[in-house]
Amino acid sequence: MDYEREYRRYVGLVEETIERLLPQTQEACPADGGIPKLLCESMRYSLLAGGKRVRPVLLLAACEALGGALEEALVPAAALEMIHTYSLIHDDLPGMDDDDLRRGRPTNHKVYGVGQAILAGDGLLNFAYERLLQNALAYPQNLAGHVHAAEAIATRAGVTGMIAGQCLDLLAERMEPDESLLRYIHAHKTADLLTAPLLAAAHIAGAGEAAFAALTEFGACVGLAFQIDDDLLDVQGDAALMGKQTGMDAQRGKMTWPSLVGVEEARASSSRLWDRAIASLSPLGERAWFLTEFAQKLRVRTH
Amino acid sequence: MDYEREYRRYVGLVEETIERLLPQTQEACPADGGIPKLLCESMRYSLLAGGKRVRPVLLLAACEALGGALEEALVPAAALEMIHTYSLIHDDLPGMDDDDLRRGRPTNHKVYGVGQAILAGDGLLNFAYERLLQNALAYPQNLAGHVHAAEAIATRAGVTGMIAGQCLDLLAERMEPDESLLRYIHAHKTADLLTAPLLAAAHIAGAGEAAFAALTEFGACVGLAFQIDDDLLDVQGDAALMGKQTGMDAQRGKMTWPSLVGVEEARASSSRLWDRAIASLSPLGERAWFLTEFAQKLRVRTH
Repeated sequence: MDYEREYRRYVGLVEETIERLLPQTQEACPADGGIPKLLCESMRYSLLAGGKRVRPVLLLAACEALGGALEEALVPAAALEMIHTYSLIHDDLPGMDDDDLRRGRPTNHKVYGVGQAILAGDGLLNFAYERLLQNALAYPQNLAGHVHAAEAIATRAGVTGMIAGQCLDLLAERMEPDESLLRYIHAHKTADLLTAPLLAAAHIAGAGEAAFAALTEFGACVGLAFQIDDDLLDVQGDAALMGKQTGMDAQRGKMTWPSLVGVEEARASSSRLWDRAIASLSPLGERAWFLTEFAQKLRVRTH
Repeated sequence: MDYEREYRRYVGLVEETIERLLPQTQEACPADGGIPKLLCESMRYSLLAGGKRVRPVLLLAACEALGGALEEALVPAAALEMIHTYSLIHDDLPGMDDDDLRRGRPTNHKVYGVGQAILAGDGLLNFAYERLLQNALAYPQNLAGHVHAAEAIATRAGVTGMIAGQCLDLLAERMEPDESLLRYIHAHKTADLLTAPLLAAAHIAGAGEAAFAALTEFGACVGLAFQIDDDLLDVQGDAALMGKQTGMDAQRGKMTWPSLVGVEEARASSSRLWDRAIASLSPLGERAWFLTEFAQKLRVRTH
């Protein structure tokens, strides 16, 4: 099987679905119940800004690996990308990270203003649930599976999941570095939204307990390894810039894994996590080839 | 029947349910999957700030009027109040209305900072759907009814509903006054979230078509009349302050109904809408006594 071609196929399906759910509207103030033009445009600006579509690709790939109907998973995949995108729009706002650029383009609030960017984020979050609920009703023979899938996404995106991680990330700027705090932030800010698509796929496909356990483990390991690798890449970037190797991410004043445990130990932790991620897929057998390759491609970023 | 006692009973049920769903947590960084203390506190700060609980009371009252199980409606009622509260937190932010006070207390961002207030709002919105989905799964014999109810709430809270109204309200500050624009803002920013509880109740109670039509009409009329009356009260307040009666809400530079059509015509419109709201309930008969009284109590504010 050709991994790259398969990845592009999944990305194509995700972007087609987004385009179908959220086409550009033309009326400022639509009498027919459509989305106001400016609101729609600002949501699309960030949602269609490129990106690797990691979360929806994981959802579609896991659904196929479990023998589920890909068609039923398209809207949940797009909804998950909407939730990821809203979190980026709000993270970039003044009062949060206050960033001017995202993926090389001006951030949402730099283009549309702070007020409209808040609404674009709120709009994407609410729209994700609106469409998850409508998609559930569209498959009455699998209604409970879809409601469980939406619930798995909501729990991991919410106040005990991603939002909890963002809250502690904001607070951490004023706190002493601490491994348990950093582990908490990584687990919730990053790993939860990578586990969500795997669990949602398992619910949609009606998977058994072994598959749930395998995918939960896979998601947690990938999420943490992914974040440690991001920190390592930052350190390598900083070291190259500053002409020396250092474990302190002093320029940003942010807690990172290498700054807490050192670069070598961080690299070793990440390596162990990737091994565990790949091993966790064994109950799924051959069908998990794409997810296995996904993990292998990601691990080589820093190894 | 005693309207005031019944209203207090509904408010008590809503506040008990909120307390059950969102008790204060104590750990900054809870290992057991709870909500971080600060996030929980900031959500509760705005959610438990008093208020008339109009939307959840409408949901519970409509559910009882239609013979539905009150117990099944408690979480949807609380979820709707969470959605209303998130919209107030975000509306008060700098970049939106930039308000320092709400119901006589400092706004959320004045107490917790802008970043945490954004997260408190996001958290309440996401938590509402998390709990709506879990509540749906708790009543498997009425799963489709609950999913339809959640969908009715999501649609009216979202980018073709309340958020659309907020978007145009922000834009309107820079536009010429126009009746169709003002009607759009009122219909979406206010009326949609008053229609949502009525439709959600109808879905939970498994109501027939006549009841749906009656409650849709009731919600639309109450929502618009409510907003016109608010504008009238503002004008009366301004007129008292300025020692003269005027239809222009010049101090705030905001479009209002009286400033567009004049105070007398605004009062007449509101009166016609209240009549229509009360008449629309006739298909529900005696069981709608609370909703009828609700409309009658509200209309006397300005008449």
